[in-house]
Amino acid sequence: MNEFELIARHFTGRGAQRKDVLLGIGDDAAMISLPESRALVVTTDTLVEGVHFLPDVSPHALGHKAVAVNLSDLAAMGAEPAWISLAITLPDKRHDWIEAFAASLADTCEYYGVSLIGGDTTRGPLSITITAHGLVKADKALRRSGANPGDWLYVTGTPGDACRGLELLQMPRGEITESCQIREKLEKRILYPTPRVAAGQALKGLASAAVDISDGLLQDLLHITKASYCDVEVVSEQLPISDALAQSVPESDRLRYQLAGGDDYELLFAVPEENRGSVETALKHFAVPFACIGRFKPGRGEVIVTRGGEPMSELWQGWDPFRDATHD
Amino acid sequence: MNEFELIARHFTGRGAQRKDVLLGIGDDAAMISLPESRALVVTTDTLVEGVHFLPDVSPHALGHKAVAVNLSDLAAMGAEPAWISLAITLPDKRHDWIEAFAASLADTCEYYGVSLIGGDTTRGPLSITITAHGLVKADKALRRSGANPGDWLYVTGTPGDACRGLELLQMPRGEITESCQIREKLEKRILYPTPRVAAGQALKGLASAAVDISDGLLQDLLHITKASYCDVEVVSEQLPISDALAQSVPESDRLRYQLAGGDDYELLFAVPEENRGSVETALKHFAVPFACIGRFKPGRGEVIVTRGGEPMSELWQGWDPFRDATHD
Repeated sequence: MNEFELIARHFTGRGAQRKDVLLGIGDDAAMISLPESRALVVTTDTLVEGVHFLPDVSPHALGHKAVAVNLSDLAAMGAEPAWISLAITLPDKRHDWIEAFAASLADTCEYYGVSLIGGDTTRGPLSITITAHGLVKADKALRRSGANPGDWLYVTGTPGDACRGLELLQMPRGEITESCQIREKLEKRILYPTPRVAAGQALKGLASAAVDISDGLLQDLLHITKASYCDVEVVSEQLPISDALAQSVPESDRLRYQLAGGDDYELLFAVPEENRGSVETALKHFAVPFACIGRFKPGRGEVIVTRGGEPMSELWQGWDPFRDATHD
Repeated sequence: MNEFELIARHFTGRGAQRKDVLLGIGDDAAMISLPESRALVVTTDTLVEGVHFLPDVSPHALGHKAVAVNLSDLAAMGAEPAWISLAITLPDKRHDWIEAFAASLADTCEYYGVSLIGGDTTRGPLSITITAHGLVKADKALRRSGANPGDWLYVTGTPGDACRGLELLQMPRGEITESCQIREKLEKRILYPTPRVAAGQALKGLASAAVDISDGLLQDLLHITKASYCDVEVVSEQLPISDALAQSVPESDRLRYQLAGGDDYELLFAVPEENRGSVETALKHFAVPFACIGRFKPGRGEVIVTRGGEPMSELWQGWDPFRDATHD
């Protein structure tokens, strides 16, 4: 049995195989029956050891995260996740490692109703590439380019936690002053990000634009403003913060985590005035935490952060090295 | 401009973007409009430096091959190639290398009518993962499992050339006795494999089973016999051989290359008696070289090779190390 068969074995008997998979693993390619009047949504993300995850990360966390970061992209399009292909490069045959990785990958897929339809295992330095496929009605899909002046800016969850979690993971044990509850909460956000699939479903046809946060809130918000040709004003006082992050970093440092921390995989989205009620009701229904943090206005694609109603001009100074350290 | 944008730039203005791509590179995911009454065919292949290609391979050859090996899998299903996603991990920013790789990738895609719809660039040891998507009518798709006793076994091209080409590439110049024409022909088969897309189209609905040859003819033929629950008899005298291979290796060694050499990306397929005429006419129409090399018979999934009408019992002795050296 090769590694891929070993991984695939964890998907059989879980009841997760979708009925639209005509031909799964074991032929030259997979074959899928397509529904009418849906568009296909496709995204690819690679995780490389030492770049996107720490070398000593558990195979369980990695199996979850490899799926989650891809489903997050589908969520940001409002697409319903459906099938994934997995390409994994492994340094050697560590069967127990592969077993743990595969079991976690299968659990995450099953939770979101996703089938593994194929892939490739190769020998080499550890790296995982997943291509995820989803379905959405084309006219309801969430693009980056649909925000308009007057739309409100929202975010799910509490950005910044994942970035602090990564710092804690890399810190020598002796230097950590946080309680174990706080540490656990923050580390969980970097190790086990939640793809906002339900939120994406709730937003489709209602939000005017959306993006997921992988490189930091400000960085990813620029994807919306540039594609939508308008500015946005972010009110720093309205940025949500978790108790854990508030207790873990000095108040003067908070904004840096909230605005520039990467790997949160929260959704950032624009909502027209007339859809605010529907959006908030839908998100509450799905128990997704969210906050309204600003508003779009005419402009050429800039992001303005305010404090006490005034633009913060000092915002970008000295941030670059920090941003380089988080995510490529 | 990041590396992926650099690669994507080579695809713009080539007229290769398909009309069914609703949203290409530049959003959280790509979005594709799907045709009615077609099934989606998906395959993923990774090429790792030092495993699947030599470290000094030209970016031009690599750009071609990364696409070709994936289209070969689609061809083996009888699918029409349509869209690819590219995940590339690069050790450093070698812009001229990326330019050459991207241009070749774009040329190969354009030739086959394929659009690049998205991907990911990451930092790390060189490795390329492509997920290729194609379309086929589900009831005409070529599976591995459809061969029946009495069906004829065919192969396209001249298997064995790529394997000898790889040996020549790795041989010290001084030891090569082949003429430069012969060397060039054989090396081209490993560096620039031809995905048999036209042959796959010609065979769909006519061949009863198909597979592409990546691990060696015998090895891949076992995929058909095991999935189809029948034996096959391969007549060694009918195996096609190129002039280049015939002149490059001693006659006693030929079979080893033809039967066990990997990386040819030729198609191996089963044809029911009543479809032989249609298949041969169609392949000639597309100018695809082919040969009938054997016949399926009742059995439990074995491959028997004959010489002078007798099974060659010595066939497998001493071959394993050779096979391990070619392909994983």
